[in-house]
Amino acid sequence: MRMKANAIPAAAVACMLALTSTFTLAVEPLPSWNESASKKAIISFVEKVTKEGSSDFVPAPERIATFDNDGCLWAEQPMYFQFFFAMDRVKALAPQHPEWKEKEPFASLLKGDMKAALAGGEASIVQIVMATHAGLTTEEFEKAVSDWIATAKHPKTGKLYTEMVYQPMLELLAYLRANGFKTFIVSGGGIEFMRPWVEKTYGIPPEQVIGSCGGLKYELRDGKPVLVKTPELVHNDDKEGKPVGIQRHIGRRPIFAAGNSDGDLQMLQWTAAGARPGFCLYIHHTDAEREWAYDRESQIGKLDKGLDEAAVKGWVITDMKSDWQTVFAR
Amino acid sequence: MRMKANAIPAAAVACMLALTSTFTLAVEPLPSWNESASKKAIISFVEKVTKEGSSDFVPAPERIATFDNDGCLWAEQPMYFQFFFAMDRVKALAPQHPEWKEKEPFASLLKGDMKAALAGGEASIVQIVMATHAGLTTEEFEKAVSDWIATAKHPKTGKLYTEMVYQPMLELLAYLRANGFKTFIVSGGGIEFMRPWVEKTYGIPPEQVIGSCGGLKYELRDGKPVLVKTPELVHNDDKEGKPVGIQRHIGRRPIFAAGNSDGDLQMLQWTAAGARPGFCLYIHHTDAEREWAYDRESQIGKLDKGLDEAAVKGWVITDMKSDWQTVFAR
Repeated sequence: MRMKANAIPAAAVACMLALTSTFTLAVEPLPSWNESASKKAIISFVEKVTKEGSSDFVPAPERIATFDNDGCLWAEQPMYFQFFFAMDRVKALAPQHPEWKEKEPFASLLKGDMKAALAGGEASIVQIVMATHAGLTTEEFEKAVSDWIATAKHPKTGKLYTEMVYQPMLELLAYLRANGFKTFIVSGGGIEFMRPWVEKTYGIPPEQVIGSCGGLKYELRDGKPVLVKTPELVHNDDKEGKPVGIQRHIGRRPIFAAGNSDGDLQMLQWTAAGARPGFCLYIHHTDAEREWAYDRESQIGKLDKGLDEAAVKGWVITDMKSDWQTVFAR
Repeated sequence: MRMKANAIPAAAVACMLALTSTFTLAVEPLPSWNESASKKAIISFVEKVTKEGSSDFVPAPERIATFDNDGCLWAEQPMYFQFFFAMDRVKALAPQHPEWKEKEPFASLLKGDMKAALAGGEASIVQIVMATHAGLTTEEFEKAVSDWIATAKHPKTGKLYTEMVYQPMLELLAYLRANGFKTFIVSGGGIEFMRPWVEKTYGIPPEQVIGSCGGLKYELRDGKPVLVKTPELVHNDDKEGKPVGIQRHIGRRPIFAAGNSDGDLQMLQWTAAGARPGFCLYIHHTDAEREWAYDRESQIGKLDKGLDEAAVKGWVITDMKSDWQTVFAR
C-alpha cells in the first residue's frame, strides 16, 4: 500500500491501544461467573488450546466457537422472541389479510388466544413466521426488525429484548475473542431476524450468524436489484440442521459450542467428535426467580436427551442459579 | 484474560511486526499490473473508501469484497477445473458403477468422448459432479480433493491447478486485505471443492467461501457423527444465485466485486446498487498466448451481457493481455 503521512502514527496508536486493552483485560476473566466448576473448566480449556507448544494447542484460525441464541445468549420464555415480533407483524398486516380472520393459526392469534394459535406446535410457529416475513425485500425486513427491536418490550419483564441478553455469556464471548476465537451464532431463529442487532449487542458481525432461512428471490424493480423474501423454509437450523449449517457456512468444525436445549445436541456432538479438543457447554435454566426454570418438560427450549448425554459424556452443565452472579446484561 | 509472564513481550513483538509489515508494504501496490486505467481505478477506489472523514469513507467491517473463482482467480479452460476432478473420480468409481457403461453422460466420458459427455450442457456437468461427489462424508471428500489438487496436472499447461491462479489477482486480494477489506469467494463451483485449498492458495479461510452446494445429511456411524454428501443441488451459486448466496452467508452487500462472466453479472449489479460506493470489475480474457481468449461465444465463462452492461455503467474491464504483466502465479 502507499504510505500516507499518518500511516506510522496510526499504526503506533493502534499498537498502544492493543497493549492498553491487554492491560485492561488483565483482570480475572468472566467476572459475573461464580467460582464454579463451569468457570474453571472454561478457563482451563481456553488456556490449554492457546498454549503454544502444547499437544492441545489449536492455531487461531481453527478456534471456532458456536453459540445457540435463544435461551443461550438471551432469554426465550414464555416464547421465542422472534415469535413476538411475528405476532406484532400479524396485527400490523391483518388489514391486508382479511382471510386471516377465518384461517388458523392467524384467527386465534388475532383474538389474542395464543394457546389455540400454537396448538399446532412448531409447525404453527413456522407458518406464522413465514407468512409475516415473506414478501418484503431484505432491506425492508431489516428496517422492520431494527424498528421493532429498538422499541418492543417483553410482556413479563417490561425490558427491551436486547436487555434480556445474559451478562455472563457476553463475558464468555469477549473472553473467547480475546483469546483468538472467532465467535458464531448458530440458532434455530431466523438469520435475517438476528443480523440487524447482534453485531451491536454481542459483537458478532452478520457474516458470523447462522440461522434458519427462507427463500430469497433476486429481482430488478425499476432497474434496481432487490432480494425479496419468499415463504419457503430453505434451511431449518435446528437439531441435525445445526452441524449442516455449520459445515455450509463455516466449513470447519467448532472446538467450542454452547447451547441450552435438545435442539443443540447435534451441534455439541459434532463439536465433541473432532480431531481437536472440543468443549461442549449446556446452559441449564434453573433460576425461576431471576429468569425461568425449565428443562425436560418445557415446550420451549426442552432439554431432556441433552441432559442425559451431557452427563454420560462429561460435558459442562452450567447451573444458571448457582453459577451466575448476574443473569441479564448490566 | 489472565496475564501470562510473556503477554506483554508477545504483544509488543506483534506490534513491531505490524509496523515492520507496514514498512514492507510501502512499495507500490499491484506490482504485476501495468499502469493502466484498471489499476488506477482500483487504487483510487480503495484510497477513497479508506480515507477517514471523507464522504465516501466506509468503516472497515463493511469493506466486503467478493470474487468469482473460475476465470477470475484461476483459469477455467478448456473446462472448469472441478470437472477434471469429477472426471478423475468417474474413472476411479466406474468399477463400482457398472450401469455407467450404458448411462449418459457417464458412458461417453468413460470412452473419452468429452464432447458427447457434455452435450447436455450445464445439466450434464451438474449430473457428473453430483454423482461423483455424493455419498462421501465431508471428511472423506476433503481428503479426496486435497489429494487430487496436490498432484493432478492441467491437460494443456502441465501445471498443477493451483499454479494456474492469477498473480495480479493474488496481489489484488492482498492489497484489499491490507486496506481492511474482508475478501470472500463467491463461485458457481462447489463450496466443498474449494475450501480444502483456497486458504493456502488465496489466503481466504473456509468461512469466507461461498459456492454451489449439495445436500448434507447428519448421521451417527458407530456413535460417531458424520456429515454425508447427498446428490441434490441445494444452492446453485451462479447468476441470481450469487446475490442470494452473498445475502445468506455474509448478510452485507459487497462494496467491491470481481468476476469474468455473465454468471457474475447479478453479483456486480447488486454491488453497484448499494448505498455505499460500489466497485465492479470484469476480468476480460483477451490473451490467447499467455492464457485463453474468449468472451461472447464461449461455452465456458461466456461474457456477453456483462460486457454490454459494464460499458453502459462504467464498470472497470481489465484487459488481461494489456493490463497484466504476468498472468499465472510466480
